Amino acid sequence: MPAKSQLLFLFDNATDDAIAQGIQPVAVRADPSTPHINVMDLGVTRGDGIFEALDVVHGAPQAVDAHLARFRHSAELLDLPLPSTEAWRSVIHEIVAAAPAHDELTVKIVMTRGIENNAAHGCTGWAYAESGPDYRRARVEGIHAVTLDRGYRHDVAKTSPWLLQGAKTLSYAINKAALREAARRGANDVIFVSSDGYVLEGPQATLILQHGDSFVTPATDQGILAGTTQAAFFDWCAAAGAPTEYRRVTVDELTSATSLWLASSLRQIVPITTLDSVPREFDTAVNTAANEYLLARRS
Amino acid sequence: MPAKSQLLFLFDNATDDAIAQGIQPVAVRADPSTPHINVMDLGVTRGDGIFEALDVVHGAPQAVDAHLARFRHSAELLDLPLPSTEAWRSVIHEIVAAAPAHDELTVKIVMTRGIENNAAHGCTGWAYAESGPDYRRARVEGIHAVTLDRGYRHDVAKTSPWLLQGAKTLSYAINKAALREAARRGANDVIFVSSDGYVLEGPQATLILQHGDSFVTPATDQGILAGTTQAAFFDWCAAAGAPTEYRRVTVDELTSATSLWLASSLRQIVPITTLDSVPREFDTAVNTAANEYLLARRS
Repeated sequence: MPAKSQLLFLFDNATDDAIAQGIQPVAVRADPSTPHINVMDLGVTRGDGIFEALDVVHGAPQAVDAHLARFRHSAELLDLPLPSTEAWRSVIHEIVAAAPAHDELTVKIVMTRGIENNAAHGCTGWAYAESGPDYRRARVEGIHAVTLDRGYRHDVAKTSPWLLQGAKTLSYAINKAALREAARRGANDVIFVSSDGYVLEGPQATLILQHGDSFVTPATDQGILAGTTQAAFFDWCAAAGAPTEYRRVTVDELTSATSLWLASSLRQIVPITTLDSVPREFDTAVNTAANEYLLARRS
Repeated sequence: MPAKSQLLFLFDNATDDAIAQGIQPVAVRADPSTPHINVMDLGVTRGDGIFEALDVVHGAPQAVDAHLARFRHSAELLDLPLPSTEAWRSVIHEIVAAAPAHDELTVKIVMTRGIENNAAHGCTGWAYAESGPDYRRARVEGIHAVTLDRGYRHDVAKTSPWLLQGAKTLSYAINKAALREAARRGANDVIFVSSDGYVLEGPQATLILQHGDSFVTPATDQGILAGTTQAAFFDWCAAAGAPTEYRRVTVDELTSATSLWLASSLRQIVPITTLDSVPREFDTAVNTAANEYLLARRS
């Protein structure tokens, strides 16, 4: 796939409900440069939909099961019809097969609640593939991060589920605003912290802390996404005999950690080399070996 | 305009910046039943855009200046190019003129950051008109509301502007989730409260409290929208010599208030007849007279 080319499959009504009603979702190849979304689609009028982004390395989409499980979990949190795991899995493989060979490819899947006042339309869906941004340098040289208050207590997903914390929704304006604030502070990325002093996640990534030989990630019961890449990193740790843990992480621990990484599907893991403008060391041996392992995944 | 008919004008690049660069935004009439938005538009991939909704009564769009001022303020909060007040004003009047006579019409204006990785495209924009929902009964008989925690402190817009509180953005999934939670509780609408005990606003409305002969609305420095309809209601109060005030309102005040209303562009004011399932009285004389005044506005 040449650097600028893109693939689009429209994929409406790929939900368990629609399929149970006899609708067979069909992936329709379409031109990504022409419009395909109605101005009254709730995805654009209300950011009312969900998405996932997958890395495809040498033709193999990574962590498909984990992404599809999270896609369904996001749908549950939004009271959306559940996306069909089998239908979306097949469209992911279909779009990857249609893409010319490429070192790394990004596949995005999106499902919205459909068109306002048009229940007959059902859920709007599409899958999109393009050559991914090149993160090879960031994986080696690292990134600059700042901490920003997310404004919520750490327990808000339990007390106030209507705030949709832990869902990967199309209502991402705050995440983009946080990244602009990071840029204003001379950084590339953000670690969100709760209003009561706990470390959460990045706008588009999971945080991993190293303490000596052990690894910690903030527990997902704090309204944060279950990281698919971070889970694979923990598998790698377990295979190497290194202890891993999900738990509450206080802001102070950011200072005492040996290394900090942001893990995400498209970047794999990237080390944080400054946090709030303070230089940070990181374990280069772990960084190199873990990224090799993560990039070598074939499912 | 028949009940189901709709009008759409596409209106890209109607920003001060684009106009300064010699681009003259043109409103292009389009078929609202066909797609006009690219799947990579940041409006749909990230809820990264802004909107306003106006009521048009007997051919007169209401509070145009106030809506356009808020549209620009939302753009500022999102670091978007500023929408041109004159260009958007003219498209509002153009779409109203194109609509057949109708008692009440809803006009929505939307502007997104444009298409991902396609800076040349500029901001996507459109104006949309349709016959509004019929709120005549709700204005007389009132609605059922529940209080829900918004999860943020009252001062979060000042401490953490990247949370975009006070901006009317396309990232509205939380507001829709809160309305679904209200429905689960047998209610129609929501009053958001801050995590530290202050009353804020509705997901799509401003709160007005009556205490005897005076009227109060939560101050907008708490990350809430400046209400266009509530401002007109305060004008009406002032003309009648009734004191009005913007200030912090504690949750306890909801109980002691004589009347509670939600004010919004399409509904005008609707009285709250139960709050968290507790029956509430309201001042029917004020309700009737104020709605008559608000509906009679011709700008």
